[in-house]
Amino acid sequence: MLGYTIGRQCYDLYHNGDAVRFRRGLIMIIVMQENATQQDVEDVVKRIKDFGYSTRILSGEFRTVVAALGDARDKARLQALESLKHVESVMPILKPYKLCSREVRAENSIIDVKGVKIGGDKLVVMAGPCSVESKEQLIETGKSVLASGAAILRGGAFKPRTSPYSFQGMEEEGLKLLKEVSEATGMPFVTEVMNPRDVELVHKYTDIMQIGARNVQNFSLLKEVGKMEKPILLKRGLATTIDEWLMSAEYILSEGNNKVILCERGIRTFENATRNTLDLSAIPVVKEKSHLPIIIDPSHGAGYWQYVAPMALAAVAAGADGLMIEVHWKPEEAFSDGPQSLKPPKFEALMKNVRKVAEAVGRSV
Amino acid sequence: MLGYTIGRQCYDLYHNGDAVRFRRGLIMIIVMQENATQQDVEDVVKRIKDFGYSTRILSGEFRTVVAALGDARDKARLQALESLKHVESVMPILKPYKLCSREVRAENSIIDVKGVKIGGDKLVVMAGPCSVESKEQLIETGKSVLASGAAILRGGAFKPRTSPYSFQGMEEEGLKLLKEVSEATGMPFVTEVMNPRDVELVHKYTDIMQIGARNVQNFSLLKEVGKMEKPILLKRGLATTIDEWLMSAEYILSEGNNKVILCERGIRTFENATRNTLDLSAIPVVKEKSHLPIIIDPSHGAGYWQYVAPMALAAVAAGADGLMIEVHWKPEEAFSDGPQSLKPPKFEALMKNVRKVAEAVGRSV
Amino acid sequence: MLGYTIGRQCYDLYHNGDAVRFRRGLIMIIVMQENATQQDVEDVVKRIKDFGYSTRILSGEFRTVVAALGDARDKARLQALESLKHVESVMPILKPYKLCSREVRAENSIIDVKGVKIGGDKLVVMAGPCSVESKEQLIETGKSVLASGAAILRGGAFKPRTSPYSFQGMEEEGLKLLKEVSEATGMPFVTEVMNPRDVELVHKYTDIMQIGARNVQNFSLLKEVGKMEKPILLKRGLATTIDEWLMSAEYILSEGNNKVILCERGIRTFENATRNTLDLSAIPVVKEKSHLPIIIDPSHGAGYWQYVAPMALAAVAAGADGLMIEVHWKPEEAFSDGPQSLKPPKFEALMKNVRKVAEAVGRSV
Amino acid sequence: MLGYTIGRQCYDLYHNGDAVRFRRGLIMIIVMQENATQQDVEDVVKRIKDFGYSTRILSGEFRTVVAALGDARDKARLQALESLKHVESVMPILKPYKLCSREVRAENSIIDVKGVKIGGDKLVVMAGPCSVESKEQLIETGKSVLASGAAILRGGAFKPRTSPYSFQGMEEEGLKLLKEVSEATGMPFVTEVMNPRDVELVHKYTDIMQIGARNVQNFSLLKEVGKMEKPILLKRGLATTIDEWLMSAEYILSEGNNKVILCERGIRTFENATRNTLDLSAIPVVKEKSHLPIIIDPSHGAGYWQYVAPMALAAVAAGADGLMIEVHWKPEEAFSDGPQSLKPPKFEALMKNVRKVAEAVGRSV
Repeated sequence: MLGYTIGRQCYDLYHNGDAVRFRRGLIMIIVMQENATQQDVEDVVKRIKDFGYSTRILSGEFRTVVAALGDARDKARLQALESLKHVESVMPILKPYKLCSREVRAENSIIDVKGVKIGGDKLVVMAGPCSVESKEQLIETGKSVLASGAAILRGGAFKPRTSPYSFQGMEEEGLKLLKEVSEATGMPFVTEVMNPRDVELVHKYTDIMQIGARNVQNFSLLKEVGKMEKPILLKRGLATTIDEWLMSAEYILSEGNNKVILCERGIRTFENATRNTLDLSAIPVVKEKSHLPIIIDPSHGAGYWQYVAPMALAAVAAGADGLMIEVHWKPEEAFSDGPQSLKPPKFEALMKNVRKVAEAVGRSV
Repeated sequence: MLGYTIGRQCYDLYHNGDAVRFRRGLIMIIVMQENATQQDVEDVVKRIKDFGYSTRILSGEFRTVVAALGDARDKARLQALESLKHVESVMPILKPYKLCSREVRAENSIIDVKGVKIGGDKLVVMAGPCSVESKEQLIETGKSVLASGAAILRGGAFKPRTSPYSFQGMEEEGLKLLKEVSEATGMPFVTEVMNPRDVELVHKYTDIMQIGARNVQNFSLLKEVGKMEKPILLKRGLATTIDEWLMSAEYILSEGNNKVILCERGIRTFENATRNTLDLSAIPVVKEKSHLPIIIDPSHGAGYWQYVAPMALAAVAAGADGLMIEVHWKPEEAFSDGPQSLKPPKFEALMKNVRKVAEAVGRSV
Repeated sequence: MLGYTIGRQCYDLYHNGDAVRFRRGLIMIIVMQENATQQDVEDVVKRIKDFGYSTRILSGEFRTVVAALGDARDKARLQALESLKHVESVMPILKPYKLCSREVRAENSIIDVKGVKIGGDKLVVMAGPCSVESKEQLIETGKSVLASGAAILRGGAFKPRTSPYSFQGMEEEGLKLLKEVSEATGMPFVTEVMNPRDVELVHKYTDIMQIGARNVQNFSLLKEVGKMEKPILLKRGLATTIDEWLMSAEYILSEGNNKVILCERGIRTFENATRNTLDLSAIPVVKEKSHLPIIIDPSHGAGYWQYVAPMALAAVAAGADGLMIEVHWKPEEAFSDGPQSLKPPKFEALMKNVRKVAEAVGRSV
Repeated sequence: MLGYTIGRQCYDLYHNGDAVRFRRGLIMIIVMQENATQQDVEDVVKRIKDFGYSTRILSGEFRTVVAALGDARDKARLQALESLKHVESVMPILKPYKLCSREVRAENSIIDVKGVKIGGDKLVVMAGPCSVESKEQLIETGKSVLASGAAILRGGAFKPRTSPYSFQGMEEEGLKLLKEVSEATGMPFVTEVMNPRDVELVHKYTDIMQIGARNVQNFSLLKEVGKMEKPILLKRGLATTIDEWLMSAEYILSEGNNKVILCERGIRTFENATRNTLDLSAIPVVKEKSHLPIIIDPSHGAGYWQYVAPMALAAVAAGADGLMIEVHWKPEEAFSDGPQSLKPPKFEALMKNVRKVAEAVGRSV
């Protein structure tokens, strides 16, 4: 029970006179072992002070706890005290993300992408092919998703592929096609950036820069996009906890870019009937913890087109701020992710149902 | 080697003249290693025939494949051929569940519980406390969930608890209370059975017998409830694939009881913000593979009451045939699962939204 | 960090005057929300007292914590307080298992099976076929594993199979064969029991009763074998944490049978190159937390015979008290688990290496 | 559908006259649905040919299979055929990694790092602090690990940290210290590179470049280090299958750098008693599939220093080619990973036992 209840703790402990009080600022509590002597406790206190923290001793009949107060940035040094012989454990008790937390900003963040608002009452649907493959493919797919109600075009120009022998994307050529189709249709577009060296290039063309699931903890890349102006769509990793994902968002916000859109796209589990396991509970959890908008990508989550529509509707019912859906005019010829792509008529049918479910939960599309 | 990965295949292979054809009846293909001699192949063929199968040899330039045809029941013996020196792998290629598969029955099964139909257009909501604790608790909770639109009462009399020191349930006393409240409210009820020794006792009282997540592969228990007449609600285990879950349902059907209701309640993953990870993609996957109805338990899936409503609505949007929700008149006094139980007013509010989302996807409650 | 460090905590908190002290007996701490009023705190205190606990208030500048002290058995009722509006979280802080914990018994438990001692310096190897299939199979395999150095014979008479159409074991006939071969070779034997109804029957024949991975939380079965006299080999479940596994052992000990041997056999993860992921770190973790012996089953852990020997040697190096290995005279004809079974000559070769590694870490075989 | 499960297959299928033969070169088999007409099959065949593949039709009584032969690089386009109405599934059947596979090179690769040979009979131990923190820390730790038998120094100058507020490493200053201590002790060193922009800088100083777990699928980075000359230590990701990990190695080899050392450091599972679950079965699996050396990092795998020694010995017994161990002269003052770092005396004691176990399995240190 503890494993999953205390991870969410965000309180700060403060000792004052004959009582224990909680206040922001505390970083860690250090639990001494039962047989620790006063000398051992003093030794721990001295080390904590040497790290620049103030301390509060909570001594007891059998055991003593030392609370360390100060700047969270250096808390790994406190964690290391766990190696001391008479220390039983060291427990961090400050929520590690700040800027993206609800406590810092109670109302929802709404991110404006050329007039399309993400995070408000109106749901935003991003749709398009996995990879940009040709002008014809992109313009046809773009027109059709626009007609069905998509607000943002998606398409990959730089592709992260498990195999070095797979199609790696059209690169700048693809960016140009995206820009062209975006201008022709009036839809802003989102595309992935993988390499810090490409950040400026992609930023020059795109309206939203996407960080893919495999780069969710590529901290060098997060820092670079955090310095840019345009919104960032940050996908959750295959094995990233929600707290770690918010910490990755924090990397971007801490560099000055607070226009982050979170995107759940399935986590890796033992189940193999689907490509990944789409964790829709991330929606209410993120909404509770953070002010950032969250959208859902059921295409990667499910991995097979026939499961995409039910999962998209479920996402809307659970409170998602939008959807990202792979649509391809000819999935059977797609260079990547064909099996999970919808054909335009299927996407159009889905959008009708998305509207109905959105209304049922008090939203619009 | 592939025994564990390819088990999802449902095609049958049949060799005929100069071609390879597919037909029901084939069980395994045995792939020989590149350096296998004709003698090695003949040895394998002889062994397969000794097991009572017929064979088809698919010899090739570099490698030979032997297909074994016959009765699937004994296929583990074929799997064992993988131990032979010149065999590279043995692959089963027959869908292992039959009676619960869509191929056997194309239309949805509808299960009638005293007039409440599960699996049809109308969603069925089962609600009530985790544990039966007292007559007053049960009657008050029962009346309130009925008033809000629940069709079936839930309540545990035998409780599977991680710790031997936790409350283990009111046992037969609890069954009597369930029966009494069921009769007073007119709602049929569902309750768990854990021990083969208790099957007859529980069957005497209850309307639906529940097999809990921890017993999903308690094959002795599955066989016993498969011999009973009343419907079975079979929860998915914490680490059970959808295929294994359907195999557990198959145990029940193969004993003669085809009134099985599947219930997804969350699987175990690395994420700890929720108690489990509710796998809503199980809904479209089960609907594709099986004719059995599937309901969702968002209470155990999420583990915290504030996430229950969004996940319940998501389940309805994804096509679930019903919901199982923990409601307690005083969650803060519950003997078990208090944190994930809704209070009656929250449940009433949820039911209003369930109706709206159900309508949006063409269902009713 | 907290997720995995605090799960191991076993301290009790006690507040005394101007300090916080730790003592066994405390069960939970209840953290109030920042905006909780004195009235809210008093309400929580009253509820805790009504449950029969005494309380200590740790009031603070911004937040108040209430510690509840008393009998751990009813702690789920305290957990339920998390549902209250002004309660932020409820945290259990008492190690939930007692009888199997190192704190209760500092020295290793050594379990005597007809003179074979499990848990001492000498490693115990259990070997034999997955399923008992015939007298000839069992006697030949038994003789060969005895000759190679196995101390205990293994063989399944009741088989838990994913599919109802697979071979389900020879049942009592198999028990008789095991008894016969055990007497002929002088080796005690271990065999699985799945159904509470079969406990007496299996107990009559066997020397060690095995609880399989799928039944690790079959609490009815655990209670029944806890009432018997003979040692119990308790396999870890596919998705059972080490703490939950120890809680399952606690079920057996709490019924009076303290002769429990733990057996790690692989957990379920996303990796599919092996049948399961053998978690050898369970060895040092269990050794730290509990006085019970732990053995390793590399056959189920790896799932393919060619990985069994390296994993067996690794288990010995990590400090396991023994091994359980599937050996079959003709794996290619085995009714179950053929791919992971060793042939007698491979087992003999393995035992020679087991001896060398055991000596390297100061043990013998 | 099978794209994700069957990828381990390494046989090639070739149809010839009245038989089915296997040959390298085949990429995919396309299984048609039962009700596919001849026209549907011809349509599929035409599409495959349009992609530049040759085809073989394996028509049957009930079902037809089309085999596509040609260049594997474009196989995702074939996978996309799964979207066609009459196609049941598309199965890749060529092992996706080539250069790092045993089939390409039967003997073990031995990688020479300034005279230290990794992958031969002699085990190589890499040891040192998680982060470089000061000259004194590094020189003292370096001398002590050398004295105990380590052959390579480890230390982080660029640190991937979950939180942007944690210590991020000494960067080039740290590289200079590593170089200095390396020269003073005569030990080559390994250090991590995270950003493609830093590859040249790190390469200038280091002897082995490490790719961390979080960057295992940072394909931009893999390509850049693949163009460099020095050996690469490639850690497995938290949720990376062994096949995906080998594909990441393939990225490096395919760019021309074949000096790749694999390093298993634990995968993410539901268990939280350890920081990660160290998957030692990766050793025999990698040895079977690939010619590349594999070492084990028990420090990150276990996460607590008291579990490091048993897991290190287990790794040696299972056949690892080396170990990477975090040693810190004062773990209680470490800037990162203190709880899992060994003090020099513990490391010295461990090395004595490593030698004994290595000898027991026919290796040396």
